Formats: sequence, structure tokens, C-alpha cells
Amino acid sequence: VKLDELYALLKRRGVLWPSAELYGGSQGLYDYGPLGHALKRRIESAWESWFLGLSPRYHRIEPAEILPEAVVRASGHLENFTDPEVTCGNCGAAFRADTVLEKVRPDGVDGLSPAQIGELVQSHRVKCPSCGKEALSVPRPFNMMFGLDLGVTGKEKGYLEPETAQASFLSFPRMWDVGRRALPLGIAVVGHAYRNEIAPRQVLFRMRAFTQAELQIFFDPAEFAPELGPLGSLALPVLRAEDRLAGNETVREVAAEELVRSGGLPEFYVYHLAQSYRFYRDVLGYRPASIRFYEKSKEERAFYNRIQFDIEVELESLGGFRELGAVHYRGDYDLGRHAQASGQDLHVTPTNHPPVLPHVLELTFGVDRNLWALADQHLAQDGERRLWRLPAYLAPVPVAVFPLLWKEHSAEALRIVERLREAGLPAAFDDTGTIGKRYARADEAGTPYCLTVDHETLDPAGAGFGTVTLRDRDTKAQERVTIDALAVRLAPAQRFPRPGPAAAA
Amino acid sequence: VKLDELYALLKRRGVLWPSAELYGGSQGLYDYGPLGHALKRRIESAWESWFLGLSPRYHRIEPAEILPEAVVRASGHLENFTDPEVTCGNCGAAFRADTVLEKVRPDGVDGLSPAQIGELVQSHRVKCPSCGKEALSVPRPFNMMFGLDLGVTGKEKGYLEPETAQASFLSFPRMWDVGRRALPLGIAVVGHAYRNEIAPRQVLFRMRAFTQAELQIFFDPAEFAPELGPLGSLALPVLRAEDRLAGNETVREVAAEELVRSGGLPEFYVYHLAQSYRFYRDVLGYRPASIRFYEKSKEERAFYNRIQFDIEVELESLGGFRELGAVHYRGDYDLGRHAQASGQDLHVTPTNHPPVLPHVLELTFGVDRNLWALADQHLAQDGERRLWRLPAYLAPVPVAVFPLLWKEHSAEALRIVERLREAGLPAAFDDTGTIGKRYARADEAGTPYCLTVDHETLDPAGAGFGTVTLRDRDTKAQERVTIDALAVRLAPAQRFPRPGPAAAA
Repeated sequence: VKLDELYALLKRRGVLWPSAELYGGSQGLYDYGPLGHALKRRIESAWESWFLGLSPRYHRIEPAEILPEAVVRASGHLENFTDPEVTCGNCGAAFRADTVLEKVRPDGVDGLSPAQIGELVQSHRVKCPSCGKEALSVPRPFNMMFGLDLGVTGKEKGYLEPETAQASFLSFPRMWDVGRRALPLGIAVVGHAYRNEIAPRQVLFRMRAFTQAELQIFFDPAEFAPELGPLGSLALPVLRAEDRLAGNETVREVAAEELVRSGGLPEFYVYHLAQSYRFYRDVLGYRPASIRFYEKSKEERAFYNRIQFDIEVELESLGGFRELGAVHYRGDYDLGRHAQASGQDLHVTPTNHPPVLPHVLELTFGVDRNLWALADQHLAQDGERRLWRLPAYLAPVPVAVFPLLWKEHSAEALRIVERLREAGLPAAFDDTGTIGKRYARADEAGTPYCLTVDHETLDPAGAGFGTVTLRDRDTKAQERVTIDALAVRLAPAQRFPRPGPAAAA
Repeated sequence: VKLDELYALLKRRGVLWPSAELYGGSQGLYDYGPLGHALKRRIESAWESWFLGLSPRYHRIEPAEILPEAVVRASGHLENFTDPEVTCGNCGAAFRADTVLEKVRPDGVDGLSPAQIGELVQSHRVKCPSCGKEALSVPRPFNMMFGLDLGVTGKEKGYLEPETAQASFLSFPRMWDVGRRALPLGIAVVGHAYRNEIAPRQVLFRMRAFTQAELQIFFDPAEFAPELGPLGSLALPVLRAEDRLAGNETVREVAAEELVRSGGLPEFYVYHLAQSYRFYRDVLGYRPASIRFYEKSKEERAFYNRIQFDIEVELESLGGFRELGAVHYRGDYDLGRHAQASGQDLHVTPTNHPPVLPHVLELTFGVDRNLWALADQHLAQDGERRLWRLPAYLAPVPVAVFPLLWKEHSAEALRIVERLREAGLPAAFDDTGTIGKRYARADEAGTPYCLTVDHETLDPAGAGFGTVTLRDRDTKAQERVTIDALAVRLAPAQRFPRPGPAAAA
């Protein structure tokens, strides 16, 4: 499946479309329609259920998404959150340096200096993608944050947050009290991040506004040691930085305990790699062979990270592996910077422990990118039939209810919709077209269960009284089920997998 | 309860706090902590369950929150979304005109021209609140939208959306197809709105970033006639504009059907007033005597509205009635403006009907303000005990699980937490302090159910094996309940009230 085809399908089904389409769209901004919104929320709930399920000491907060300048100065974003931009001396068009160098350096320009990028542009005689002339400038840094004026004076600057993490760091002192002064303390945010991309593209993969789900775990490095336990034998598909630098791009399956024993990684880090792997494989259901943990080298990773593995998944529509999340060991960089800049001591003193400036382990997850990946990997063709094989708990519409005949069966179908919604199942009602067409529509929307109300349902003399036809998306099998039994029968659509009992803290 | 006291309590409990507090806070921006976030989501879910429950043809979408300039030009915001601002010629401080005129005109300055406001400032010799000099300028309009540069050129302007409604209007053509080309069609958005308030204040009541829940119902005015039915006899507390203009500020209880018969209001409008009243009274549980529908006169209401009743609730902490939502009949203003500005015909042709430019009925709901109102109205003092009498389905933490003794009972308590979470109940674990202190903490957080695991729970020889103590927040009554029965017993915390079976469309 190609990117354009997949995007066309998602638009047609109202999963998403360009924002402000009536005015020709707004680059890098998308609106989610009903299916897209519902799927996005289910992804977020699955993420929350899983990662906040790791400990009762992890909490979700909802911070404002505008940061005052002092924050982005302290975090380094004001200085460093830039992309190299080249402009055309002939036509004036502007581009991200990596996009004009795509053929020359398909892996991007991370780690190259502006001068090195400039040399590449020159030596390969790269032409302006707009006008075709060889007139591209030496790159200059372009800050990707969106700035705002706060208030009327023009003196107070704010920024749309370039990442949700800063809000977690800022909330740490309050959360220390809320969490009853114990470590580890997890702070999760599902929120927007904003980046003024020079060249938004690939639909949900380089957007100007997107949703991140992140968990920052604040811990004492002398104490934090979640045990691998049975996870020790889990084989993780890793591509180590040292292997890559030695020219070996082969993913190796390495047992988690082996990564600790001889791989030089701390157990707490590997534990979270393993739990992440389970999430991508078992909860989101990506094909195991399509998942890899891509280690960034010291030169490649963000300067504040001590260890960084990106979680990459192979996507046909994007022609290769793409980053969908990451596990960052940020050390004490963040609290240290904010302590320095704000003049407030951020050391904490857990009961019976010496004071410590907590370290941060950060689990990041791109909600939009994963939504796309779920379409890429789970949309399938079965002969003439197109179906979206989403796990039931991720299906945007877990159950659709059809009246066989509009006039005779609508009232009962709506009663069933109401009853399922009361039980917490977001049931949909569809009375348009033949039952076959409605099945086709439901298959394409990923709906695992379709219910049809017919004359049997309503005939008190018949054997089918009080039953409906339940049809399974994947097998197409049909059976009669009593209405009273539906809530239990459809329960798989309401249960998000969880990582297992949390250890006593 | 005073505003400052209530705010202090909410901060202390981690419901909310000033954003970027580490740097002294950012005016008009707040972060929600774990309790605040959970309560906010429950309010949003309750709203969605109720208002999307009105029809299976109502859908929720999630649009981008940045609008290109063409949109806010067409909507009128670029020209009209202004507040009169006065600046001090002496010290340079800037103020919203209504804030400096608060004592002179407590009802605000809506409908006054800049010249009239200037005269009031002059004639009452209003002093600068900052420096105390009589040096305030004549008001000038200050546009309250936050502007952004999109891309690198500096030529493409965007704006943080000043209201979520525009995104609904823009999505109408896509949603017309998604909704299978039938009216009424409802589009709901729960999203952020941004306003560069000159003088943010009163915590959640005048913020620079806040959350709106809105439902725009697109309908054919010749066809849309939801029947009042049994709602006809519901008495609605109205303050009519004509009564107010005649000097009568008394709220009258008028039966819904009477508002149609002799009150000059269309039935579809009154139907939604009545459903809104039920929501505020029965779902959010505000005291009936504290709710009123405040009709805006032609001069007071937004120019695009044909009918506007604000939903106001009396709040002790704010010293009077405050707007928490509204019902706006916007006619065909919005689609008309966007059709004209975009050059696209937005008439639609439902099956067997003539083409129509749909009208819009808009139900707005301020999520943050209602969160505050739920604290104002439901936080109670019972002797020494402070408790937050939230309905169980709104409680941020519906159930808390306590091990009586940390060492002996934590593992079982965590198993119960896990089991309840698997069943969809966000249970919390609390092992800090005496059981009495934990009850007190839970009471203040609004937790309706507390469970305690003790030696009886684990003693296979005793009568209490497999049971826990369930303690009720409001009555303080305690009973032993078997762990297996908990999910059913606690079900009230999972069921949002619904408006009743939707009528066949």
C-alpha cells in the first residue's frame, strides 16, 4: 500500500483530512474525523492503561501547552531547537536542508555542521526544487518553535511547547508533594507538541501540531531497579550503535537479561525497553519482524540523553522503518537546568534517604504516527473485501447495530445502541444501504462486531425472539446472540491489555 | 467559601496550579494535576455521553487548533474579536476597559462604544490601578487572538483558534459525506480555545488557554423539530431579556412547552434548553435554585446569534452568577460566511429534499469553569471533615484501596487495584499514614468508595476471607464486601447518566 492510496482511503472514510480544507488546507495540520478521533483516543487509552499500569506511583497530568520564554531558554530550545534551512537566491523558496539533500544523503543531516551541509549542496550541485536553479544558500539555523506575544505589551514572549516533557519537569515540585514524597515518581502527559516545520510532509509523520504521549519517570539512580524477572528471557530486536558504526546493519534478537549482562545497559533501562516491546507487539499488534530498537550513537542522540533507543516500525506506505517512539535516559540534565535557571533547589529527600537530584527516564510515543502505522499494518485485503484488522479494544467503533428494515427494526436497533452505550460501549447505528454494504463499511472501519436486528428479534412466537445476528469481522461467521448476553460477549472491546500486577512500591 | 481559599485547597490537593510556577507562573495559564486531569476528563465524558446521546447522528471530531488567516477573516474574528484596552499615560500599564470600570459598571461594558467607555473613565475620574494617576487613555480595540508565523517566509499567518466552533464549520463538507448526507448532523469538538486576555483573573474564569466542549447541530430549519414530549412540563428557570429591560431581574420558572406556546421560542431551541437544564441539574448536580437561563438581548448577544441564553450558575466563590455555558441559535451565518469567503457552495441536498444552507444550533460548555463550579458547589464541611460530594461518575478517583498494614496487606491491595483497573475502574492505591488520614484524604478528593484490605481479607479460616471493608464517603458507613462482588457494587462510578433513548432519526 502506497502513502497516497492509504491517505486517500483514510480521507474518504473520514478518519482524517487536511485542516481548513475549504480554504485549500493548512500545511502540516490535519483534522481527525469521527473514526480518527475515536481511534486516537483508544490508542491514548491503551498507552495509558499499559504504561501507567507499570506502577501505582505514576500519574497523568494535563499542563498548559504554552511555555514562557524562561522555560525554553533553560531547556535549551531557544538556542538549539533549530533545523538547517536553505533558501533559493533565485526564487526565494525555503527548504529544510535534509529535504534538498535527500538523494545525496538519504539518512538525513543529523550531526553535520551548517558548513558541511553547505559543502554537500555545492559539491553535488543540488538544484532548487522549486525553480530548478543552482542557487541554494548556505544553511542557516531556523528555530522551529512557534512564538507568541502574551498580553498587550509585546514584551512578554511565550512559545507553543515543542515537546510535552518540559511541562513534566516544571510540575515536578508540585508532584513531589502530590506523590507523597517518594521515588520513583512517574508523570505522564498526553498533549500537543508544536513545531514550525519548514517542510511538513508524509501526512502524520512531519506535522506542525501533533500529539505526544510521554511518561517521565523521576528516580534515584542509586535505588531504581525494577527487576526483569520473567522478562529476562524476552528477545528484543536491537540494532546497536556500535554494530552500525562497524558497518553491520543487521537487527539482532538479544535476550533482555543479556543486554544487561553483557550489553552494557542498566537493568532499569532494559526493563522499560522490554515493556515497550510488549506494548508495540502485543497491544498495538505490529508484526514482530517489523519492530526494531535503533540505538542512537553519542553523536546522533540528543545531547541531554545518556542512552537513546528509538522504537522503529517498518511501514510499507513509507518505504521503510520509521520512528514511532523512543526510550530516553536523560540523566539529571533537565532538573539540573531548571534548578539553575529558576534558582530553586530541586533536590528531594525521600524518607530515610539522602537528598538526590532525580534522574529521568523518558518513554515517548507519537500518537499520530502510531495511528498511521495501525492503518499501514492492519488494513488488509481479503479478496474483494477490505478490512481493518484492528484489535477489538482499538476499534474506533467496536460495535455497529443495523436494523434489517428501516421502518420495522430501527426502534429496537436504537434501543440496543442505547443499552450498549449505557454499558460503556460506543455503539454506532447504521441504517443506510443493504446489509452487505453496511458490513463492507464496518469492515473498512475496523468494527469487529456487527449486530443485525430483524423480524426474528421481534417475533415473540419465534425461537429467535430477543436475539440478534452477531457477525465477526475477521471470520465473517454469523451467530444468533441474545441481547441480554451482548455486554459480556463484546467485553473484549472494552478491555485494554495491561502489563500485569505492579510490584509493591 | 472564598475564591482564594478554594484555590488554595485545589492547589494543595494537586487539582491545579499556576503553569510554569517554578518561574513565577504564567498569567492565565494553569496546569491540571492528577485529580484535576481525571476530573476534567470525567466532566468531558459526562458531557459527551449526554449531548452525543441526543442523536446517533451526532459525532465527535478532533480538529487542529491553529487556523489560517483566511478562516478568521471570514468568521469575523480578525475584525471583531477585540476587547477595549486602556493604557496609562503615566506608567504604561495596560488594562481591559471593563476591569478599570468594575466599580462604575459592575455588569461590564458590552455594547458600549470606545467613546462611551472613554467618557465613563473621564467622568468618574478613574485612576490607573497600577500607579494611581488619572492618566488612562481612550480605549482602543485589542485583538485577543494569538497570531503565529507559519513556515519560514513570515508571510503566512495563523492563529490559535479563539473558539472551537470554526473547526466544526470548516469540517461540515467532509462530515456531510461521513454522516451519509442527512440532517440534522451534529459535530462535537472538545478542544482548546485561546484568548490573549489583557487581564486574566479569577483562576479558571478568565484564562488564556481553556477547554471548550461544543456541539454544533446543522439542520434544515423547515424540518428540525425534536419533540418536547414529557420535557414539556419541565419548569425552566429563565430570565428573559424583555423582563430585564423592563427592570425585572426575577428568575421565573416557566414550563418548557409554555416557552414555545407563548414565549416566542422555537420548539427545537426549547428542547435543547431543557436537555441542558437536565444536564446541569441531574448530571453535574448543581443546586436547582442556583441555575438560571439568562437571555441576552439583541444588543447584548453576539451579532451572529438569533437567540442566545447563557447558562449561569451561582457560585459562592465568585460572588454571584457566572456563565458556564450557552445555547446559541446562529442561523445560517457561519456556513454563509465561509461559502462566500471560500467561494464554495455549502448548500446540501438531503434525499427527497430541496437544497438548503443548514442553520446551526450551538451548545457550548466551558469545561474549566464547570470544574471550578463543581468544587464550589460540592466541596462541603461536615464537622471537622471536609468532603467533596461529587457524583460517583464524576469522581476523579472513584475508588481507593488501602492496605491496613503496609507489609502484610500491600500485595493483596495492589492485586485488587489491578483487578479494578482491568474492569475499567481507575482505582488508586494509598499506603501512607493511618487509615483515618487516608479516609480524610479520599474524602477531600471526592472518592466515593474506599476499600481496606486487612488480616480478615487474607485469613482463610475466618468469615471475612476474600472480603474487604467498603466505606462510603457520604455516610461513613462501612460494610464487608467480597472482592468478587466489587465490580458490580462500584458500577455507579462507571455509568454516566444519559438523556434517554434517542428518537429514530
